[in-house]
Amino acid sequence: MTWKPRISAAAKRIAPYVQRTPVMTTQGFSLAQPIELKLEQLQHTGTFKARGAFNTLLSGPVPQAGIVAASGGNHGAAVAYAAQTLGHTAHIFVPEMAGPSKIALIKRTGAQLTVVKGEYANAAEAAAEYEAASGAMQIHAYDAPGTVAGQGTCMAEWEEQGLMADTVLIAVGGGGLIAGALGWLEGARKVVAVEPETSCALHAALANGAPCDVEVSGVAANALGARKVGQICYDLAREHRAESVLVTNEAITSAQKALWQERRLLVEPAGATALAALMSGAYQPAKGERVAVLLCGANIAPDPLA
Amino acid sequence: MTWKPRISAAAKRIAPYVQRTPVMTTQGFSLAQPIELKLEQLQHTGTFKARGAFNTLLSGPVPQAGIVAASGGNHGAAVAYAAQTLGHTAHIFVPEMAGPSKIALIKRTGAQLTVVKGEYANAAEAAAEYEAASGAMQIHAYDAPGTVAGQGTCMAEWEEQGLMADTVLIAVGGGGLIAGALGWLEGARKVVAVEPETSCALHAALANGAPCDVEVSGVAANALGARKVGQICYDLAREHRAESVLVTNEAITSAQKALWQERRLLVEPAGATALAALMSGAYQPAKGERVAVLLCGANIAPDPLA
Repeated sequence: MTWKPRISAAAKRIAPYVQRTPVMTTQGFSLAQPIELKLEQLQHTGTFKARGAFNTLLSGPVPQAGIVAASGGNHGAAVAYAAQTLGHTAHIFVPEMAGPSKIALIKRTGAQLTVVKGEYANAAEAAAEYEAASGAMQIHAYDAPGTVAGQGTCMAEWEEQGLMADTVLIAVGGGGLIAGALGWLEGARKVVAVEPETSCALHAALANGAPCDVEVSGVAANALGARKVGQICYDLAREHRAESVLVTNEAITSAQKALWQERRLLVEPAGATALAALMSGAYQPAKGERVAVLLCGANIAPDPLA
Repeated sequence: MTWKPRISAAAKRIAPYVQRTPVMTTQGFSLAQPIELKLEQLQHTGTFKARGAFNTLLSGPVPQAGIVAASGGNHGAAVAYAAQTLGHTAHIFVPEMAGPSKIALIKRTGAQLTVVKGEYANAAEAAAEYEAASGAMQIHAYDAPGTVAGQGTCMAEWEEQGLMADTVLIAVGGGGLIAGALGWLEGARKVVAVEPETSCALHAALANGAPCDVEVSGVAANALGARKVGQICYDLAREHRAESVLVTNEAITSAQKALWQERRLLVEPAGATALAALMSGAYQPAKGERVAVLLCGANIAPDPLA
């Protein structure tokens, strides 16, 4: 499949509804060279996921029964927001580990919300049952072409904003964001997939030769904790030879703290995971290699102003 | 005095040391029209004040006795950071109301720190005594040409980044930031000075016909709580007819909450004060008037990751 035209079409489709997020070049984080950042955590509902949600909802008819989504929290908030904006009803299934901040965020949109025991995979089962019973349209969190094309608009936008980097580091959960980036870039820049050691579905799939189930836990699990990576992501990662690296939970927490203390960027652990690969040395750029880091989420708990 | 050449010279001088902060256009906050934002809260040490500090330190010789500054917290942190970066010693005087986050921030730079009972004016007295006794060089927080020229680089940078607005809203404490903006703009855009009702030294000075003492309190007092506005600011505000508006503490807190909930921008109350004027209707743009808001500080307490 050729992704570039799909992503261009998605960008046009969603432009009136999504935030064009700022970029900056900054020196710090004990790194030898400046890095480029894209502040995608400033997107509607605090993550890139609004892009995929709007793209899917705007790509075809939506049934009277509305929308259903399963989510660690961020995708559900994005779907709920997009549904509300476009006048559809939405029913969101999240696992308990989504946590109070993400649950409150979904509630504020006015969507129906069901909190399921267990992890993301359990919420996905409940959402599938609801879909079958109600006739609602399901928006998959990462392994659907409409979702991937929507997330790909983030990298397309970054290039339009003058991205210089040879290499882009992106955090991976189910793989929707990185799949979109790989599909857009078509090998024009190196892409590094960064996962927590305790939640590494892509890394395991690459070692295994196919997507497979992994255990998920750790500080970023409520955003990156997909039990199995998407097939679309897996295929694109193989095709474009994404480099896969792992970081510890401690490295993620350190990067999150550094982003606040040095640059006043407040992100959730998943949002700091890509930077953690640079700060910890899990990814070491070659001499002269220009590096960029995508900040992808800001839905921390507890709410900093509560 | 002609400020423009001074501000241009300052911009060149400080460029290697300050963060070029991002800008964005965004729709939200229950406003009818999109607004432009400059994210100057992402500057080193979390406020615009690093600009004035670097400009002063780079403009001439620094005595062996080092630097002294009095500050509600933000200026002190910026001076301490600039001194550390350039290899000078610094002694910072802050009032108790600076609060634990700002005090911790100053301590992290390695500067000497004295916490003074009372408010900003009391810290200023203690700093003046130290200056006389030690021979250290004092950097005034807002009423000195080097400080004002440095802060003016923020507006110069914003115009370079393509600012479109007819009108720019800026929060005012002692008036260094708005003085720099007025000096740079020379009337080319309308400037609205926004102050808390409970800390409004410029508003009182304009009513009185000269800077005068006011009582200071409220949620933004540890950043905007100057007892008397700077003469430089007062003169420029008169010359360029800055419009002065006041906002309640409740309006400031609402704007701060909206910036986080809608856009994941975490700012301190002072950083939300300019937006509060729009959200509360204290400033009502005319039809078609394009408006920009300068976000100026992010040093909230308590530390959101503590």
